Amino acid sequence: MRKIIIGVIGPGENATKTDLHNAYELGNLIATEGWVLLTGGRNVGVMDAANKGAKAAKGLTIGILPNQDPESVSDAVDLAIFTDMGSARNNINALSSQVIIACGVGLGTISEIALALKANRQVILLNYAPEISQVFANLSKDNLSVVHSPVEAVEFIKNGLLHLEQKTY
Amino acid sequence: MRKIIIGVIGPGENATKTDLHNAYELGNLIATEGWVLLTGGRNVGVMDAANKGAKAAKGLTIGILPNQDPESVSDAVDLAIFTDMGSARNNINALSSQVIIACGVGLGTISEIALALKANRQVILLNYAPEISQVFANLSKDNLSVVHSPVEAVEFIKNGLLHLEQKTY
Amino acid sequence: MRKIIIGVIGPGENATKTDLHNAYELGNLIATEGWVLLTGGRNVGVMDAANKGAKAAKGLTIGILPNQDPESVSDAVDLAIFTDMGSARNNINALSSQVIIACGVGLGTISEIALALKANRQVILLNYAPEISQVFANLSKDNLSVVHSPVEAVEFIKNGLLHLEQKTY
Amino acid sequence: MRKIIIGVIGPGENATKTDLHNAYELGNLIATEGWVLLTGGRNVGVMDAANKGAKAAKGLTIGILPNQDPESVSDAVDLAIFTDMGSARNNINALSSQVIIACGVGLGTISEIALALKANRQVILLNYAPEISQVFANLSKDNLSVVHSPVEAVEFIKNGLLHLEQKTY
Repeated sequence: MRKIIIGVIGPGENATKTDLHNAYELGNLIATEGWVLLTGGRNVGVMDAANKGAKAAKGLTIGILPNQDPESVSDAVDLAIFTDMGSARNNINALSSQVIIACGVGLGTISEIALALKANRQVILLNYAPEISQVFANLSKDNLSVVHSPVEAVEFIKNGLLHLEQKTY
Repeated sequence: MRKIIIGVIGPGENATKTDLHNAYELGNLIATEGWVLLTGGRNVGVMDAANKGAKAAKGLTIGILPNQDPESVSDAVDLAIFTDMGSARNNINALSSQVIIACGVGLGTISEIALALKANRQVILLNYAPEISQVFANLSKDNLSVVHSPVEAVEFIKNGLLHLEQKTY
Repeated sequence: MRKIIIGVIGPGENATKTDLHNAYELGNLIATEGWVLLTGGRNVGVMDAANKGAKAAKGLTIGILPNQDPESVSDAVDLAIFTDMGSARNNINALSSQVIIACGVGLGTISEIALALKANRQVILLNYAPEISQVFANLSKDNLSVVHSPVEAVEFIKNGLLHLEQKTY
Repeated sequence: MRKIIIGVIGPGENATKTDLHNAYELGNLIATEGWVLLTGGRNVGVMDAANKGAKAAKGLTIGILPNQDPESVSDAVDLAIFTDMGSARNNINALSSQVIIACGVGLGTISEIALALKANRQVILLNYAPEISQVFANLSKDNLSVVHSPVEAVEFIKNGLLHLEQKTY
């Protein structure tokens, strides 16, 4: 029975302290639910923090790396998938996650949100400025949600879980 | 001596009449300058219109297809590059164009703008609503410009041409 | 601490009964060792059989799909990574496995062996005709081994394990 | 009307003098026929030599680069397509060429031949040892040919041209 994979995306080098704090909590809550965490896998920013949060709750973590460099992988990634295809791997993150949670803003993150919505994935924006969320809401009403805390993000996913399972299995 | 490649991106199935009109003119002006036109290559929307405009001015056109289906290629594409990698090919469009002009709005287009800016490519937004252009301007001041006509887009590129050639060759 | 990932590759639609039997046993032995099984993820041939063998030993299984179609995934895949990039995903399989075991022959499998050796991955050929193994041996002496049973393949990996762990962590 | 694209593949750093000589002549003859030359685009080995041969006959040349580094591009490439996806770009070369000519042997080349045959592309092996050509002939009888000179390769393509045009347009 396929496992539920939840993607957490956000800035690497330019993550803020709030982004890192939220990412850690997201990873932790996702693992607590028994879901698998998927990130971009590098040892910086939101990716690293989310993986650390998930491991603190004994979760399973997958990293989809843009490179093929073992040194660049977060210590908290269990399964490193090396794509060596740079930012084109963002599409794999989008396609492989049943739900994507965006935590923090950056160009890579924006591209990933757009790719996920294009692929009809559910996308949750955590604490996004209305200026940004409105741009995406205009392009994809049905699959976009805005939440204001990691707990709210995970509650939102749980409420849609039955639907999610039907999609996955 | 490598040729200058200008990418034109925009919606496929959901392009507006204005998008199509602008795309045709962009393709036409790009070809008139002797530049090569790069698009997503399919026989719909902005891709198709831009290629038709370029061929009307006897330009050279490259299409970077998301599939491997010859039937899906615009008749006005000279060189069809079949990637069979879906939306992940958007990153190839971004990396292979010296300048990207966005003509019309859609999720694929938004992802491509973000990927192009992330790769430090010059991006020109044609007639974009300030709500959208501001989101990108906040993330990348130096490489983003907003213009209000195809002619203005091409003039803008010509003014930066010396810089462009230094980057290319 | 990153998990050890062992890739098993081989034909999909054209697998022989022997290929399927060996693939099941390979998956089973890999899982018994506590390693993670990586395959191309589809519900046919060597991929499907290896995953079933691994699940019978309560292992963890990752499938790197060439498409984005949930219906095409083997029931025995725990973690489905959807690349939607066709045969280009073969390179991801190669890069993400510490060791690749080839079980059966086909064009996709041949491409994957070549890509894995090019990326300096250890490749084990199970019961390959000398005509084929010699072609690869001429191009990459150090990383190629030929074995004659699933047990021998896994013993070979165990003997190199210390080296493997140094590479992974 | 789409142009006919002929791919020439072969070793980069490890090309022999004979490979380079043949690659130059292949590029030259392809350009003389009015076909577009497609290669891996780098400034080494068979790629570089084929492009130089094509430019000497005033042909048009496309390079499908594995990286995003303008410094790595052959001076004789007109159109540089930057994929930044490493060896996974081999599949794009295969899919985008109506015919692939393999000139010299290497692991990347072997992967590309296999991917091209898998995608039902016509593949021509130039001066390949029977040990290698037999491996591929066993897996794909209909699309594989062995020739003994660049002239013979191009004659072979010309004889199949009508069929080729029907496939392309």
